[in-house]
Amino acid sequence: MRFLLFAAIFVASSLSAMNLIDEAKNSGLKPLPKDQKGVEEILKSNGVKVSQFDLRKVELGKKLYFDPRLSKSGIISCNTCHNLGLGGADGVSTAIGNKWKENPHHLNSPTVYNAFLNNVQFWDGRAKNLADQAKGPIQSEPEMATPAKLAVEKISSLPEYVKEFKQIYGKSGVSFDNIADAIANFERTLITPSRFDAFLNGDEKALSNDEKKGLRLFIDKGCVACHNGVNLGGNMQPFEVAGKYKFSNLGDFKGDANGMVKTPTLRNVAETAPYFHNGAIWKLTDAIKEMGSVQLGINISNKDAKSIETFLKSLTGVKPKIIYPQLPVSTEKTPLPQF
Amino acid sequence: MRFLLFAAIFVASSLSAMNLIDEAKNSGLKPLPKDQKGVEEILKSNGVKVSQFDLRKVELGKKLYFDPRLSKSGIISCNTCHNLGLGGADGVSTAIGNKWKENPHHLNSPTVYNAFLNNVQFWDGRAKNLADQAKGPIQSEPEMATPAKLAVEKISSLPEYVKEFKQIYGKSGVSFDNIADAIANFERTLITPSRFDAFLNGDEKALSNDEKKGLRLFIDKGCVACHNGVNLGGNMQPFEVAGKYKFSNLGDFKGDANGMVKTPTLRNVAETAPYFHNGAIWKLTDAIKEMGSVQLGINISNKDAKSIETFLKSLTGVKPKIIYPQLPVSTEKTPLPQF
Repeated sequence: MRFLLFAAIFVASSLSAMNLIDEAKNSGLKPLPKDQKGVEEILKSNGVKVSQFDLRKVELGKKLYFDPRLSKSGIISCNTCHNLGLGGADGVSTAIGNKWKENPHHLNSPTVYNAFLNNVQFWDGRAKNLADQAKGPIQSEPEMATPAKLAVEKISSLPEYVKEFKQIYGKSGVSFDNIADAIANFERTLITPSRFDAFLNGDEKALSNDEKKGLRLFIDKGCVACHNGVNLGGNMQPFEVAGKYKFSNLGDFKGDANGMVKTPTLRNVAETAPYFHNGAIWKLTDAIKEMGSVQLGINISNKDAKSIETFLKSLTGVKPKIIYPQLPVSTEKTPLPQF
Repeated sequence: MRFLLFAAIFVASSLSAMNLIDEAKNSGLKPLPKDQKGVEEILKSNGVKVSQFDLRKVELGKKLYFDPRLSKSGIISCNTCHNLGLGGADGVSTAIGNKWKENPHHLNSPTVYNAFLNNVQFWDGRAKNLADQAKGPIQSEPEMATPAKLAVEKISSLPEYVKEFKQIYGKSGVSFDNIADAIANFERTLITPSRFDAFLNGDEKALSNDEKKGLRLFIDKGCVACHNGVNLGGNMQPFEVAGKYKFSNLGDFKGDANGMVKTPTLRNVAETAPYFHNGAIWKLTDAIKEMGSVQLGINISNKDAKSIETFLKSLTGVKPKIIYPQLPVSTEKTPLPQF
C-alpha cells in the first residue's frame, strides 16, 4: 500500500514535470544546440547568413577579441565591454568607450555569450549576424573609434596575424571583413549550456521544484511571448507595448524605424545586471515587475517576481574555458596609439 | 687532419661560449629561479619581505587581477595596464586611468612579468614588494581610483570572494592587505623563462652566435652595470648620469628624493615598447643608443645597437598559461560603479 502511494506520487510528479517540458517547448522555448552543426541549423532557420565555421578562425578571432590595438587608443578591446569573466557584459549602465565617452544613446552593452544565436544584433536589430555587428563598435567614435582602414593597417603591421590571415583566408588576407569574420567565429563558440537545457532535453530533475514553479509563471504570465526560442530572446519586438517605460527619459533610444527593439537573451541574465537597453534597473526582480507592467500590462507580485527570478537563475550556463591569448608583438610599422 | 681542424674549432667555440657564460655570471647576470623556493631565496637576498606563498592565493589573486570592479568605475582592472597578452604592459606611452586621465607624471606602465623579482617597485622605488605596490594603482585617482574602504566593501559584497578569503586568511577575511597579498601571490607566478636562462644554466647552444655577440657588447659597453641580477634591472640607479635626457621635458618625474630611478627589467623588453619612465621612445635600438648616451656617456653605433637588440630579444620568455577567470557575480549589496 505504502509502495503504491509512493509510486502514484512519483508518477504524478513525473507526469507534471514531463508536461512542463512539453509546455515549455510548445511555448517556443528551445535548448542550445549541441554542436556547430546544430548552431548552423538554427541560424539557417533564422535566416542568418554566416561564413563557414573554422577552428583556425576561432583561435585567430580569440586573439582579435582580446586585442586592445583594434581600438584607436590601444587600450580598449571587445572584451572591455563584453567581458567573458563578467557574464559577457561590463556591469555598467551605459557602455564607456574611447576618451571615456558614454554611449550617446545611453545604451547598455549586451552579453556576447550565446549572442550568435540571436536572430538579429544590436538593440535596434540593424545587423543580421555577428560579423556585421563586430564592425560597428570597432569603428564607432564613442566605442573603439578605429576607422576600418586603420584597423586593417594595424593588424597588417603584425606579421603573426598576417601569416594566420593568409593561411585561413588565402589571397584576401587581412581585410576588415575577415577581421570581423574571425571574431564572429570565436564568438560562435561562446555558448553556455545550462540546467534549463538539460531540462528541455528531458532531464526532469535538472530543475528544482522552485525553479519549475518559476518557469510555469514565466510561461503563464506571458514573458515567453517575447523571450522565446533558443536564446529566450534575440528577436525584434515592439517597444513599450502596454505602458510608459518609467526610465525612458534616460537616453533617446526609440528602437528601429518601426519602434521595434531587440529582446535581450535571458541566458546568464543573473550575471548581467544592470538591465534594459539603458541599464536603468539593477535588481532582477524589479526588471521582471517592470516588464510585466510595460510590456504585458499586468502587475507581477513581489512573490511571483521572486519565483520567476529563481527560474531565470537556472539559465546561468557553463562558460567555455578560455586560455588568455598571447598577442602578436607590435612592430615599427604598427600605427601608434592615438589619444 | 680535417677531423682535428673541426675538433679544434669546436673546442675553441665551445670554450668561448663557456667563457661568455662565466663572464655573464661574473658581471652579475643571473638565471630565473626554477621554483617558488628559488624565488624566496632571491627575495630574501634582496631584503624583500613577502607573505607565505599559497596556491589558493594564486587562484584568488588571478580573479582579483582581472576584476574591473576593483576600480571605481568598474571597467579598469590590473590587466588593463599590465596586459598579460601584451608582454605584461599596455603598449602606450603614458598610463591611462579613471576618466581617461593620463598619469600626471607621464609615467609608463612597467611589465608585471617577473616584476616580483625586482628589488623595488614603482619607478621611484617607493614599494619594497608587490603587495605594497598593488595598493597604489587601486587607490590612485588617475588609475583605478578606488579608496581602500570601497575596495573592501566591493569585494565583501561578493559571497564567493568572502568565502575564499575566509578559507585562506581566516579571521581577517577580506581586507585591503589581504586583497593586495592575493594579487601579489598571483603575480609571483608570472615568471617567463627564456633562452637566455637556458644559456646561463649551461646550455651553450641556447643562444645563436649573433645573440652571443650582442650579449658580449651588452657586457662590454657597460649596460650590465645597471641591468644586472636575475631581472637585468629592478634595482635603484642614479637618473641621467652622463648627460641630459633628451625627452626629459615629457613629464615632471625626477626619480626619488635622491634622484634615483628603478632600472626597468629587460626581460620581454622586445614586447614592451614604448620605453623609459615616460614611454618616449618606441624603437628598441633608439632606446639602446639613448641609454648609451645618457647613462654611459658613450656613442653606441647603429650596428652595435642592432646587435644588442638581437641579444635582448633572447630575453623574451615563455608566458605561463592563464585560464581567463570567471568572476563572482555582483549582488544587490555591491556598490554601484561610479563615473
